[in-house]
Amino acid sequence: MDWTEGYIAIDWGTTNRRAYRIDVNGKCVDEVSDGRGVLTLAADDFPSVVAATRQRLGDVPMILAGMVGSNRGWRETHYIDCPADVATLADSVLWIEPERTGIVPGVAQRRGQPDVMRGEEVQAIGAMASGALGGAELICHPGTHSKWITMQEGGIVSFHTAMTGEMFALLQSRSILADQMEGTAVDGSVFRNAARASLAGAEPLAELFGIRARALLQQGGSQDAASLASGLLIGADVRAALRSRPSAKEAPIALVGRDDLCALYAAALHEAGRTSLFIDGSQAFLAGTAALVEKL
Amino acid sequence: MDWTEGYIAIDWGTTNRRAYRIDVNGKCVDEVSDGRGVLTLAADDFPSVVAATRQRLGDVPMILAGMVGSNRGWRETHYIDCPADVATLADSVLWIEPERTGIVPGVAQRRGQPDVMRGEEVQAIGAMASGALGGAELICHPGTHSKWITMQEGGIVSFHTAMTGEMFALLQSRSILADQMEGTAVDGSVFRNAARASLAGAEPLAELFGIRARALLQQGGSQDAASLASGLLIGADVRAALRSRPSAKEAPIALVGRDDLCALYAAALHEAGRTSLFIDGSQAFLAGTAALVEKL
Repeated sequence: MDWTEGYIAIDWGTTNRRAYRIDVNGKCVDEVSDGRGVLTLAADDFPSVVAATRQRLGDVPMILAGMVGSNRGWRETHYIDCPADVATLADSVLWIEPERTGIVPGVAQRRGQPDVMRGEEVQAIGAMASGALGGAELICHPGTHSKWITMQEGGIVSFHTAMTGEMFALLQSRSILADQMEGTAVDGSVFRNAARASLAGAEPLAELFGIRARALLQQGGSQDAASLASGLLIGADVRAALRSRPSAKEAPIALVGRDDLCALYAAALHEAGRTSLFIDGSQAFLAGTAALVEKL
Repeated sequence: MDWTEGYIAIDWGTTNRRAYRIDVNGKCVDEVSDGRGVLTLAADDFPSVVAATRQRLGDVPMILAGMVGSNRGWRETHYIDCPADVATLADSVLWIEPERTGIVPGVAQRRGQPDVMRGEEVQAIGAMASGALGGAELICHPGTHSKWITMQEGGIVSFHTAMTGEMFALLQSRSILADQMEGTAVDGSVFRNAARASLAGAEPLAELFGIRARALLQQGGSQDAASLASGLLIGADVRAALRSRPSAKEAPIALVGRDDLCALYAAALHEAGRTSLFIDGSQAFLAGTAALVEKL
């Protein structure tokens, strides 16, 4: 098959997937998203799900990225090492069917602090390839596991993962703070004061109990507890990222992800004296798969 | 009733309680502990449980402390404000039956970072009253919620709570690290290296995912993941405590609590250049209740 005649690119995550139909001109002409993330599927289910996607979007080659290549996905791809660029990723695509259905490998950092990613690497190289990064050297993907990726000379140099979103969810659903943290985290003075505290070196572990104490002492309602916890955690996440990767202070930091989360990270980055730019995740993914497909 | 004829002191927590029979000479002559913590009892159950304790240990006055005075306990006592000493605590004992059955109030910090405690205050004033503190000004009670208490001139000046133990438990039971964190945290090079990283300012949120990455990259077994996570969290807890309360560097820090946890905190404190001394929690509780009873 010939990729220049168009293809399907699928961003296949843990709980959701999104498939894009790219035409002969490299333009996205159709897309579908659904809840058939890898955790909802057995390994045996993938061929039929993929066949249905082709029926819907066209019988063309297909490039898949994300958790579909994990040990809980369709077929496990290995991790390629940092530094990783478009060429090294394209070279390591795992072919389910040669030249027709391939899975992009993940990226690993084996030296220093070990780390892994699956999916964010495509958006990162796409953001760089499309010029969307501007002068940014650091990309942040907020989420359950925030990824902070340092980019240089066309590729991923290093990265680290922070468990910020997962920690927030555990606190909100399972901790002694659950009763207070019912609301949604929003940007505002509560969020920013908390973020500033963490940016200045306060430790969330030692600050979070204040949420419970305030409630017991009737010093504050529950309505802003989620924002307070979020500010503490995101502030600490940003502190760690800026501490471990001193990029040029004037360079913006690129945010890719859910709008609400990116807004909170931008607010915390602002409090740290840094500017942000927002990159559309779908556009970055499509730019990344387009760059990969060119090298296949 | 006359407290000089002996009494019963009960340290009544969330999941357990321990009752001590003190004789006319102030000596502990009998004790019972059981799993009848406040969460296992309805408010109506307390009179009969207390009556049974008197049947077992003697029909004498009784002083109760801990979560028995919380809104989930027998009767809610208010929190007295810091600074709090033996006299202020004794003045605010809540009498279920006058001069016969009383509950020690909790302590609150309303200024600065709001905080509350119930139970640790008795051990803290007991440690000070008995001379066990030596030159220590800072007491740490490691646990689900670690309490760090600054003592001065006979009383509790300020304190803060860190959610270290709860966070560890959430990570171990509910997080993506659960599969790796099956073991027990022990002191050793893994624990100490992790503690040193956090003491030097690394943020646990941004380090913990390394546990998962190491497993995915087959760079390390699960056998030391619990120690690694514990080192990161306890190191961060200690960093925050020493940062916010600069007591004299040569003064030891007093540790009160479970032996295994105190040993881990002592190891982290050692890495921070501080010495520790261990205080027996039961002894401190009995010294605290003895000091209180004198003022009733």
